[in-house]
Amino acid sequence: MPEDSGKEFTMVTCSAPVNIAVIKYCEYRMFLKTTTTVACSRSFQEDRIWLNGKEEDITQPRLQSCLREIRCLARKRRSDGEADVDTAGLSHKVHICSVNNFPTAAGLASSAAGYACLVYTLSRVMGVEGELSVVSRQGSGSACRSMYGGFVQWIMGQQGDGKDSLSQQVEPETHWPELRVLVLVVSAERKPVGSTSGMQTSVETSILLKHRADSVVPARMKEMIEAVHKRDFTAFAELTMKDSNQFHATCLDTYPPIFYLNDVSRRVINLVHRYNRHYRETKVAYTFDAGPNAVIYTLQQNVEEFVQVVKHFFPPETNGGQFLKGLPVAPTTLSEELKQAIGMEPMVKGICYIISTKAGPGPRVVEDPSEHLLGSDGLPKESA
Amino acid sequence: MPEDSGKEFTMVTCSAPVNIAVIKYCEYRMFLKTTTTVACSRSFQEDRIWLNGKEEDITQPRLQSCLREIRCLARKRRSDGEADVDTAGLSHKVHICSVNNFPTAAGLASSAAGYACLVYTLSRVMGVEGELSVVSRQGSGSACRSMYGGFVQWIMGQQGDGKDSLSQQVEPETHWPELRVLVLVVSAERKPVGSTSGMQTSVETSILLKHRADSVVPARMKEMIEAVHKRDFTAFAELTMKDSNQFHATCLDTYPPIFYLNDVSRRVINLVHRYNRHYRETKVAYTFDAGPNAVIYTLQQNVEEFVQVVKHFFPPETNGGQFLKGLPVAPTTLSEELKQAIGMEPMVKGICYIISTKAGPGPRVVEDPSEHLLGSDGLPKESA
Repeated sequence: MPEDSGKEFTMVTCSAPVNIAVIKYCEYRMFLKTTTTVACSRSFQEDRIWLNGKEEDITQPRLQSCLREIRCLARKRRSDGEADVDTAGLSHKVHICSVNNFPTAAGLASSAAGYACLVYTLSRVMGVEGELSVVSRQGSGSACRSMYGGFVQWIMGQQGDGKDSLSQQVEPETHWPELRVLVLVVSAERKPVGSTSGMQTSVETSILLKHRADSVVPARMKEMIEAVHKRDFTAFAELTMKDSNQFHATCLDTYPPIFYLNDVSRRVINLVHRYNRHYRETKVAYTFDAGPNAVIYTLQQNVEEFVQVVKHFFPPETNGGQFLKGLPVAPTTLSEELKQAIGMEPMVKGICYIISTKAGPGPRVVEDPSEHLLGSDGLPKESA
Repeated sequence: MPEDSGKEFTMVTCSAPVNIAVIKYCEYRMFLKTTTTVACSRSFQEDRIWLNGKEEDITQPRLQSCLREIRCLARKRRSDGEADVDTAGLSHKVHICSVNNFPTAAGLASSAAGYACLVYTLSRVMGVEGELSVVSRQGSGSACRSMYGGFVQWIMGQQGDGKDSLSQQVEPETHWPELRVLVLVVSAERKPVGSTSGMQTSVETSILLKHRADSVVPARMKEMIEAVHKRDFTAFAELTMKDSNQFHATCLDTYPPIFYLNDVSRRVINLVHRYNRHYRETKVAYTFDAGPNAVIYTLQQNVEEFVQVVKHFFPPETNGGQFLKGLPVAPTTLSEELKQAIGMEPMVKGICYIISTKAGPGPRVVEDPSEHLLGSDGLPKESA
């Protein structure tokens, strides 16, 4: 329920996790998250938004579309005569403040988490419930997939614009606690092509993408859901890697071609395959989204060694900066046998830092009022 | 006819052009070539081979297979009672000496040209004629395609081992004299995966490769042959680029994935698309074989400008070395407008050198005895 700070003020804070694709249309919610506070007051002159400490343009079409849809749902509920609708929010302007607990350079799907969190928070402020993923879909193509925690499946609708696509939870975040994630941030370079226009060009020009969508993805979805249910890491890992490679293959088959992987990404891929080959077991998997950063999946018992392997083959810069962020990982020693089996030339500064994380919950309301990102004046607090 | 240097000596020298794939199963013979001399003498103790000045192991299975097949054909012709067979060669050992007129670092399909030239020369020494491409196929998967000049189509047979695949000329090297080739040698690094084992793994693991082979390649072959017949550069160029990208997409879809393109290759691809976009015309095309080096196709009138563009965006190392090898290309000046339209950051030392060339003839006998690579003692001359 919205918190009333006096008569003219309604404020809600929520957090939502970041998405990582396991395979296309099946995702994993991480502990990395976006937190958003929305305040609503008759004293506000206009809608405003602050992202990671900087005021941004509220008039951008995606934001406007989210605001419009939520207000429309709230209005509908009021006219339907539902009792608990906070009607104040409908005529008032909103202030939105949002921060990520991870560096934006990590190239994670922060816009999806951000829109999911925004829609969820707006819905709480305006007293709207129900199928919100259709609304957050207005913001970012993959935002609807952020409305749950753990493993989430994306179910496509029939409409060409995807407005009727939905998400559904395959397993909650508590299902597979041994599964761990390492994000290897390999480059702070800007993406050469935005992922939305990229996918559009792929749909129009890649012959292989059509075949992949029609003939490969449906079977892989089934296999992946089964691997997750059974906590079968080998099956999970191999499907994840094959699907990541095939996605990037269709990018290359796009005309003109789209490249997200760079030479560092390819070294990470080789490193993972050599590591697994040494153990004659698939202990580690990689996946890459629309950028060069690697997301590594492994089980708890392999995290320490694999982090040490990454440190060995991508020695961190010596002049400061924290190389490992997120959940702590103890240092360990690598056997000479393992280093020789991998046998790659170390590449200094290839990886900027590692974020160590695991499965996280879906969007939720932050109950502690001290965690609001907006102050009682409706403006961002110093720390936000 | 073989030249007899006295009673006990038979020597033949031939040259064969290098292959560049236009699209899969359709290739273009370049002026770059391999030259091979084979000498046959009862005084030789054993079969020996020298490649680019260095003696190599004659016992390697591919070489042995070529020698065995040719000797078998010669024996068959003798037992069929054909008059002009030089029976001497059958019992005698051979000395083979082969050189390329281009740097091996260029990563061109030198093994294909090499085997084609070897088989052609051996056949002349041993007096064998007929369908030699089946024999040279023993040496290298693509060697059979080197038996003609100009544009050559590869017709696959029914046998799983490819032994019945043949090649046929689409157009001779004189058909499209305006068509020019620039080889951009981007890296001297060794290939991470040999192309034979790579293709085998792709066939076994890439779902997209199967779709490509069944549903994409046959139609593209027809379109390409038509584009060559009509000298339609736009159609030729776009098919070439799309097919190169799709080949590399199937490499990425292989498990574990195979990477031939590196960051420099991707920059070349972006450069070509930006250059074409500036002119709103497809004036330049790229293709990449099993390595990072780019092969650029363009028409005569664009060679000077595009070489200058490459020099501008990949400034050569200043400390000597010839940046442009092969056919001469006059320097020119680029407009500021073009440089701005391309708008990439120059990358120093990204490209080692450029080889400028054009269509070449098929394998042929070198008539001038002074061009033999072996001396009258049956050993390589100083210059070879």
